[in-house]
Amino acid sequence: MKDYLPRPMKELADQLTRLPSIGPRQAIRLAFHLVQEGKNNLAHLSKAVNDLMAIKTCRQCFFYHMNADGLCDICRDPSRNQKVIAIVEKETDLLALENTRNYTGRYFLTGNFEQSGIMSEAQRLRLQSLKTHIEKNLDAKAEEIILALSPTRYGDFYAEIIKKELAPMTLKISRLATGLPRGAEIEFADDETLGESLRGRSTKNGK
Amino acid sequence: MKDYLPRPMKELADQLTRLPSIGPRQAIRLAFHLVQEGKNNLAHLSKAVNDLMAIKTCRQCFFYHMNADGLCDICRDPSRNQKVIAIVEKETDLLALENTRNYTGRYFLTGNFEQSGIMSEAQRLRLQSLKTHIEKNLDAKAEEIILALSPTRYGDFYAEIIKKELAPMTLKISRLATGLPRGAEIEFADDETLGESLRGRSTKNGK
Repeated sequence: MKDYLPRPMKELADQLTRLPSIGPRQAIRLAFHLVQEGKNNLAHLSKAVNDLMAIKTCRQCFFYHMNADGLCDICRDPSRNQKVIAIVEKETDLLALENTRNYTGRYFLTGNFEQSGIMSEAQRLRLQSLKTHIEKNLDAKAEEIILALSPTRYGDFYAEIIKKELAPMTLKISRLATGLPRGAEIEFADDETLGESLRGRSTKNGK
Repeated sequence: MKDYLPRPMKELADQLTRLPSIGPRQAIRLAFHLVQEGKNNLAHLSKAVNDLMAIKTCRQCFFYHMNADGLCDICRDPSRNQKVIAIVEKETDLLALENTRNYTGRYFLTGNFEQSGIMSEAQRLRLQSLKTHIEKNLDAKAEEIILALSPTRYGDFYAEIIKKELAPMTLKISRLATGLPRGAEIEFADDETLGESLRGRSTKNGK
C-alpha cells in the first residue's frame, strides 16, 4: 500500500503508528491531512513537538512542569494544602482528579504499575523520596494520604503495598470510594460493584 | 482539566486536536506519551513533520511526490500503462486501489468533492489539465478512463459530470462494479446493493 508514497510520508506514518491508539491506516490519513494543511501548520506542529523537550519532572511529585525551581505548578501553589497528598498512578489520573474541581491537596505520581505486580526500582525510589519529604518537611506526619488508585486488581494490590509503607507517616490514610457510578441503574450494575456500594453505604449520602 | 499542564503540552494537545479523528483526551494522552518517550524520539518526530514540507504535487495526476521533474512515481513509471487513467477522489482511494495489486494504469485525482454538489474552481482546472494532456500527449484519445469514485450519492453525481466531460476523449469509459462485497451474506445485504448485484450479474463470475 505504501510503495508509491513519498519517503517523508512513509517516515511520518511509521512514527505515528508507534503511538498508542493510532493504527497504520489512520497514520497515513493523518500524514495526507498534514501535507494538505500546508507548510505553516507543519512548521507549527514540528515546533510544538520539539518544544516538549523543555518539559521537566517535578522533584517532589513527578508531574510535568517548566519551572526553574524544579517544582510543578501544583507543588508550588500556596493555595493548595501541601500536607494532603493524593497518590496517583499516572498523569492522566491526576488530570481527571483536577477536573473534578473538588481537590485542593497535592499529588504524588507512582508511575505506571507493572503487570508483574512487582514495584520497579524507579517506583521504590519515588516512594522513598516521598517518605524523606514527609520526614523532613512535614515533621514526619502528613495530614492525609489519599490512595487515588483505580479499583482494579493491580490498583488494589499496589494500594496495599503503599498503605503499609506510608500509614505510619500520616494522621489519616484513605482510598477513593467504590460504589455505583452516578447515573447507573441498579438492575444493570455488576455484583461486585453493587456489593461494594452496599458495604460502603452511608447515612451521609441519603439526601 | 488543562490548567496545570505545562504550556508546550497544551500547545501540542491543541494542535493534535485539530487533526481528524483525534479528540482532546487522546491528544493529551499522546502528549504525555511523547514526553515519556524522551528527547530522541521527539527530535525524530519533529523532523518527520518538518520533512513533509518537501512534498510536491504531481503536475499530471496531482498525487504527492519528491521528484525534480514534477511527476509522481506512478506517472513516470514506464511499466504502468499511461493511457489507462483511473479517476479517484482522494489520495487514500489511490492507495486502496494500489493495494489490490490489480491495476497497472495511472491515476488522476479530482480532490475532495464538495457537499454542495458543485465542482470547485480547482477541480475544474484539474479536469481541464487532464483534457489538455489527453489532447496533446495521447492523440486526443485515452485507451480507457475508469471512474473509480465511491458508489455514493456524491460519487454518482460527480461520476456523471466527469463522464460527460471525458467520454469524447477515450475509447472506453468504465466505472467500478457495484454488488455484494466478498464475504457478504445475501440475507443481510441491503436492497439496493442486492438489486445492483442482480442487474450487474455476469456469466463470467459464475465459476
